[in-house]
Amino acid sequence: MTSREFLKVRPVKDVQDFIAALEPLGTEVISLENAHGRVVAETVIARDPVPHFRRATMDGYAVRSRDVFGASESLPAFLSIVGSVEMGKPSACTVGTNEACAIPTGGALPDGADAVVMVEHTERLDETTIEVYKPVAPGENVLGVGDDIPEGEQILQPGRALKPQDLGVLAAVGVTEVEVYKRPKVAIISTGDEIVPSKTPSPLPPGLIRDINTHVLASMVSEAGAVVGRKELIKDDPDALIDISRKCLEDHDVVLLSGGSSVGSRDYTLDVLEQLPDAEVLVHGVAMRPGKPTILGRSGKRYVWGLPGQPSSASMVMVAMVCPFLRALQGERPTFPYAAGTIIGRLCKPIPSVHGREDYIPVRVLDEDQVEPIFGKSGMIKTLAMADGYIIVPEHAEGMDTGEEVKVYLF
Amino acid sequence: MTSREFLKVRPVKDVQDFIAALEPLGTEVISLENAHGRVVAETVIARDPVPHFRRATMDGYAVRSRDVFGASESLPAFLSIVGSVEMGKPSACTVGTNEACAIPTGGALPDGADAVVMVEHTERLDETTIEVYKPVAPGENVLGVGDDIPEGEQILQPGRALKPQDLGVLAAVGVTEVEVYKRPKVAIISTGDEIVPSKTPSPLPPGLIRDINTHVLASMVSEAGAVVGRKELIKDDPDALIDISRKCLEDHDVVLLSGGSSVGSRDYTLDVLEQLPDAEVLVHGVAMRPGKPTILGRSGKRYVWGLPGQPSSASMVMVAMVCPFLRALQGERPTFPYAAGTIIGRLCKPIPSVHGREDYIPVRVLDEDQVEPIFGKSGMIKTLAMADGYIIVPEHAEGMDTGEEVKVYLF
Repeated sequence: MTSREFLKVRPVKDVQDFIAALEPLGTEVISLENAHGRVVAETVIARDPVPHFRRATMDGYAVRSRDVFGASESLPAFLSIVGSVEMGKPSACTVGTNEACAIPTGGALPDGADAVVMVEHTERLDETTIEVYKPVAPGENVLGVGDDIPEGEQILQPGRALKPQDLGVLAAVGVTEVEVYKRPKVAIISTGDEIVPSKTPSPLPPGLIRDINTHVLASMVSEAGAVVGRKELIKDDPDALIDISRKCLEDHDVVLLSGGSSVGSRDYTLDVLEQLPDAEVLVHGVAMRPGKPTILGRSGKRYVWGLPGQPSSASMVMVAMVCPFLRALQGERPTFPYAAGTIIGRLCKPIPSVHGREDYIPVRVLDEDQVEPIFGKSGMIKTLAMADGYIIVPEHAEGMDTGEEVKVYLF
Repeated sequence: MTSREFLKVRPVKDVQDFIAALEPLGTEVISLENAHGRVVAETVIARDPVPHFRRATMDGYAVRSRDVFGASESLPAFLSIVGSVEMGKPSACTVGTNEACAIPTGGALPDGADAVVMVEHTERLDETTIEVYKPVAPGENVLGVGDDIPEGEQILQPGRALKPQDLGVLAAVGVTEVEVYKRPKVAIISTGDEIVPSKTPSPLPPGLIRDINTHVLASMVSEAGAVVGRKELIKDDPDALIDISRKCLEDHDVVLLSGGSSVGSRDYTLDVLEQLPDAEVLVHGVAMRPGKPTILGRSGKRYVWGLPGQPSSASMVMVAMVCPFLRALQGERPTFPYAAGTIIGRLCKPIPSVHGREDYIPVRVLDEDQVEPIFGKSGMIKTLAMADGYIIVPEHAEGMDTGEEVKVYLF
């Protein structure tokens, strides 16, 4: 139990820099239906302009603006109605001098016309004549060809995670397939002689605990846009661990091992890594708490993370490093600290001083942006479930006082 | 084109109040594997305490605290090693006076012991004896039964959307199935004589445009946790629209009709609603821009939304009302304005004054929290794709100036 070796602890910043510089996995072409949230791997060019015809943006009459110049209530312009534009069809009529053509919002402007008079500014005198009470400028109430998206415009750049509205833009220009980065396939291996499947019924004998990490890690992996592959629960047996890790690395891009990354007799992650083909240990220890014993290694082009076994520590390492890592493999440039959003609040309890490492403290956001740090004995799962986000106490800080302003990184 | 009826415009607040008071759909019991993001419909009680045995939180020796009382470097306590706890197993030994039992982090505390001395504060003299240099208090480095989650504690309340960490808590107490609210199944019907499927190749004849709304709405519906069912694209034909709406309402909880909700000859949503069984128009016009012609109706227990046809307007109505509505049907209490987060910034362009309605202005967040309103001619799709979020200009505001502080609701 006491065989210990020196952990070559790296600053968090080093790991973040490594993640930011990662090469994304390869790309694949997928249909627009499945593209929501995926990260674009190509520069998408509008091959057609949008709109590709002059479009009315109001219900009214297509006219030649010079014919209604100076029109007013007291001196209206009189125009002859020469037709009516139907939605979805090219206009059949041409608008000449002192002529007008009825047009609905979205209709194609007829030849000859250069503007649309809103129906509210007209009065229909009979079947063939309208009065116009207001002038319009050339182009008024008309979307010209390419006014929305010019032909040839770069509409999306690589690295953009596709939002619903982006899909709309792609659909508008007729792009129905898009090249995106592949999503990493992730195997999750939980280890520990004390861990039993979560479905094991009560009463559990003393010493055993239910598997928590598989559930927490799998949903975090999905949330980060990656695909959960194999989920394995195994005892602390180095041979079994090496065997299953090898198998997982055959068809997964990333293997997450939880448990067994701190130094001690039960800690085999490093042994496993060293026995994998083309193995390289990239990180062995990070100057953060929780998460100090985190390991990152590479086997060829595939990655292995060794995470703490304690669920609250493992989740914090996921948030701080593994989730942004998974996003980077999908071509997104993660920003650090990684968060769904941030809010500024004030501590309502002090945080004791720490040194030589970054402390990631789970916090709860109370009314009026009061921020409550959640402390708990090591290994508690509830502490993290209560948290809305986390704050970071920097490496050289002397702790933080009640009332101090803090930035909360939201989960 | 000019047949107009009075829109009975309702304040946005009324619609929000209606949404906040919605009854969720029914519930279903699902396995933990599929529960991420789902909304809990029951109060979940911890039937077992966590931990259910006294657990060491450090590597070291289980001892009786009174035996190491006052121990120091100069006056260590000497204890006899009576055994060693194995992970995952009940302890075989009992700790008596001046005895110690080796224990790993997570191990089950042996009978007789009440604390764990950290291995760092001990020295092993021989096979059977250790020196202890520091005292421990009773319970130190031990997680007592129920210290994390007491037996009988309410661990989750109805209305909570399950986060990864919540799944961990459920797994910890052996809950492998959970009662959640059903996800609404949503049909999306886009209407318009001018709309063609987005896969229609170029060149499109003038007057036609590709279907944008189906893609935007479908991905927003999924993002709001609902399930996309049928997607239909039909011409402005009232009979076809009534027919397809009826069919969709047979096996969907919600139908979204886009296009056809403003007053005019092409606007059939209201006709459709009125012809559905047990139909009731709940909202016909909302005092917001864009989105004034929004319609909400009910047919029995199912809902029909009539959305503007313009994609940028339709998306804003989705964000302001339909997405929170879909969340409310899943048992979440939505907060308004609906957003993924908020930031405070300063306008870098003025916004012209408006009256008698709330303006929802798409904005881009530039460096140093400069907020740029995105204006564009009505009907532009790109304006919304450029936006990071939106700001709301209140009903009675006189416009907003450059430099004014604004709250941005992020998409």
